[in-house]
Amino acid sequence: MIFNDKYTKQFVNKKEIEAIKPFVEVADKMLDDKSFLGSDFLGWMDLPKDYDKEEFERIKKAALKIRKESKALVVIGIGGSYLGARAAIEFMLPTYYNQTNDVEVYFVGTNMSPNYITDIYNLVKDKDFSVNVISKSGTTTEPAIAFRIFKKLLEEKYGEKEAASRIYATTDKKKGALKTLSDKKAYETFVVPDNVGGRFSVLTAVGLLPIAAAGINIDDLMNGANQARIDLSNKNFFENDAMKYAAIRNILYRKGKDIEIFVNYEPRLQFIAEWLKQLFAESEGKDLKGIFPTSASFSTDLHSIGQAIQEGKRNIFETIISVDNVINDIVIEKDEEDLDGLNFLAGKSLDYVNKMAKKGVVLAHVDGNVPNIEISIDKINEYNLGYLFYFFEKAVAISGYVNGVNPFDQPGVEAYKKNMFALLEKPGYEEETKKIFERIDNEG
Amino acid sequence: MIFNDKYTKQFVNKKEIEAIKPFVEVADKMLDDKSFLGSDFLGWMDLPKDYDKEEFERIKKAALKIRKESKALVVIGIGGSYLGARAAIEFMLPTYYNQTNDVEVYFVGTNMSPNYITDIYNLVKDKDFSVNVISKSGTTTEPAIAFRIFKKLLEEKYGEKEAASRIYATTDKKKGALKTLSDKKAYETFVVPDNVGGRFSVLTAVGLLPIAAAGINIDDLMNGANQARIDLSNKNFFENDAMKYAAIRNILYRKGKDIEIFVNYEPRLQFIAEWLKQLFAESEGKDLKGIFPTSASFSTDLHSIGQAIQEGKRNIFETIISVDNVINDIVIEKDEEDLDGLNFLAGKSLDYVNKMAKKGVVLAHVDGNVPNIEISIDKINEYNLGYLFYFFEKAVAISGYVNGVNPFDQPGVEAYKKNMFALLEKPGYEEETKKIFERIDNEG
Repeated sequence: MIFNDKYTKQFVNKKEIEAIKPFVEVADKMLDDKSFLGSDFLGWMDLPKDYDKEEFERIKKAALKIRKESKALVVIGIGGSYLGARAAIEFMLPTYYNQTNDVEVYFVGTNMSPNYITDIYNLVKDKDFSVNVISKSGTTTEPAIAFRIFKKLLEEKYGEKEAASRIYATTDKKKGALKTLSDKKAYETFVVPDNVGGRFSVLTAVGLLPIAAAGINIDDLMNGANQARIDLSNKNFFENDAMKYAAIRNILYRKGKDIEIFVNYEPRLQFIAEWLKQLFAESEGKDLKGIFPTSASFSTDLHSIGQAIQEGKRNIFETIISVDNVINDIVIEKDEEDLDGLNFLAGKSLDYVNKMAKKGVVLAHVDGNVPNIEISIDKINEYNLGYLFYFFEKAVAISGYVNGVNPFDQPGVEAYKKNMFALLEKPGYEEETKKIFERIDNEG
Repeated sequence: MIFNDKYTKQFVNKKEIEAIKPFVEVADKMLDDKSFLGSDFLGWMDLPKDYDKEEFERIKKAALKIRKESKALVVIGIGGSYLGARAAIEFMLPTYYNQTNDVEVYFVGTNMSPNYITDIYNLVKDKDFSVNVISKSGTTTEPAIAFRIFKKLLEEKYGEKEAASRIYATTDKKKGALKTLSDKKAYETFVVPDNVGGRFSVLTAVGLLPIAAAGINIDDLMNGANQARIDLSNKNFFENDAMKYAAIRNILYRKGKDIEIFVNYEPRLQFIAEWLKQLFAESEGKDLKGIFPTSASFSTDLHSIGQAIQEGKRNIFETIISVDNVINDIVIEKDEEDLDGLNFLAGKSLDYVNKMAKKGVVLAHVDGNVPNIEISIDKINEYNLGYLFYFFEKAVAISGYVNGVNPFDQPGVEAYKKNMFALLEKPGYEEETKKIFERIDNEG
């Protein structure tokens, strides 16, 4: 991975870097010392080294079993129990992979749309399929509802015993609804560790089982993450990309750049951006502050939000994630008539054209006062993905500390749930139910 | 369509509405008079009434021919020649429609990723397919490259004559590379009108042909748009939702709400949000100002950017697009064991739970000082979609005028293209090529 901050230099001078550096170093040390806000949730830091080897082997075995027995895998989870696996699968497999991959992977429990659930239900009901349900408590509304539906379908299709052998539960080690049910029904279980928050859990069984079941090499994924762990333990600020990135982001934020766009030039990276949006928004968007994370896929979105990036309000910076080498390149052929005027590109590869587009965009955006950071990997593979996952986790942890927040909690996620349970008259919410209906009546 | 501004009232008082109302009325009149900035591009205003009936019938005939002859349609276009059709298709068809619909629809020419193009190439090459290439000039880089590739595939597969009968070109009425080629090869052609900008073109052949080819009723779509045209010609501000929406957005923007999140609770609406992002970013993001448009699909993204919306920097407002009735509802069943604690929902429908989630979220976000606007339609159908398309077009036109910009140009989209052509040494860019390489050399 290469971290390139060249196109931030006209916005962030050396003096500013020197001025923030000691604070970034303090933040980095807080992580090492496990001494500061949220320090109960630092398990992700050592995962690539200290993960449970026995469980890791079981994940690979379960993945093989799923691939042998099933044409489809239904993954049930939301937030951190969804985005990491989907990011990895969309990155590694071709576009529309469910039309070509030997195991189709569908994600449910990510929303409460009956249209969506019905569509997926109809897609899998006549195929051999397995389920990986991922929930620490087993009571999170969206995945719990989806699990009731797909568990019943499995039981109707295969009988209770075979259904149980097709259900894999990733949940709390000891307690909770899903753990209790799994023990009773003899589902194979995998662990959501206590000291790893949802958005940092892609390198636990939460992410690893669906990723492996899709046919992706999780050994390489962990190796890449471990190399990032080693590289980013470097205490020299100027040799530590996570520290540099955290520094630049905070400097830009303090001067009014409060929107960060994660940009790619390769649509397979779009769900990495979705994973990043959760990682950054939940870690930093609190206490009435924080950069708002969003994403764009170029050149597509140059014909959408591109206009606003180039000439809109100057509250934006971009972080490009790019891949140096493509899987399949295409050479642009000569056309005798050349009516479209493209013959100046004949003999050039499409990847080359895409790279020149990127270069042209960076220069145009920088000229438009939009700072650009570029993070590049040499190719699409598991090792580089593991590296990226760990890099961004470490960077956001440091960055959050520098901005004075606990990067490991997400108190705001509870607010809507409380209202929702009150409106749904959940037992235990009687007082809230009364209040919320009074409020709605008063509002008219 | 119902426009609900109840949850903006604690942020925008009546006096503020009265104070901006005359200016909104002036903006609305500028549109009617076709007298102000960008008035050459107001063709979209009368489209639902004045569209070319002969061409409309030809679109329906061509769509039937495509559906009869082809298992797949490759749509080639970028920006406004892409997003409207995709928004309509994703809204009307089931999730993963290419696995179930009688005609698969693939979009290319939207990017320059050789990985992506190769994936789509492999998906269609062994199927009977047709191509709809959409480009006013025929020389826009992304679609022109994609068209060379898929035209060649068609010609190799079917021979030049049958290939020509499978190519439908939506382009300039009289001139340009694609028009010239089409006349020469006898492709059937459809018109991109001169007085309709790309992002306003969904109700021309640009959007209508791929939409109809996917099996969607374009008569109903136009009828819905025409009803919106009639409703939104109402000169009474308080009865005109486009005027009210334009007023509220501008008031919020002036008090620091510079991010608008287009929210849905139904994943089929996600590409409507993509269409909206282009419509709003290109129309308003200019002259160093404008609201930055982005999107979220709930409840999924409540577990992603939800934290930042609830408790991050207070520069956000939300515009919800909701659908009152679902296509397929699901009743949550009772479970004897109730380990997941969901039995309090037994007998309730999932749609009801989703609606209570929405209600709970709105109250939580408003309590967190995030204004909420809700735009709702009664169900997923073509009529309502046509209404929404026209509503948002009219609203952004008024809103842009109120904020003092030309909502119909997009000068910033050219900046990167100029650099890209210089880097690619396009004939005619010799001077720019020299300069840009000198610049890169100097930057080191």
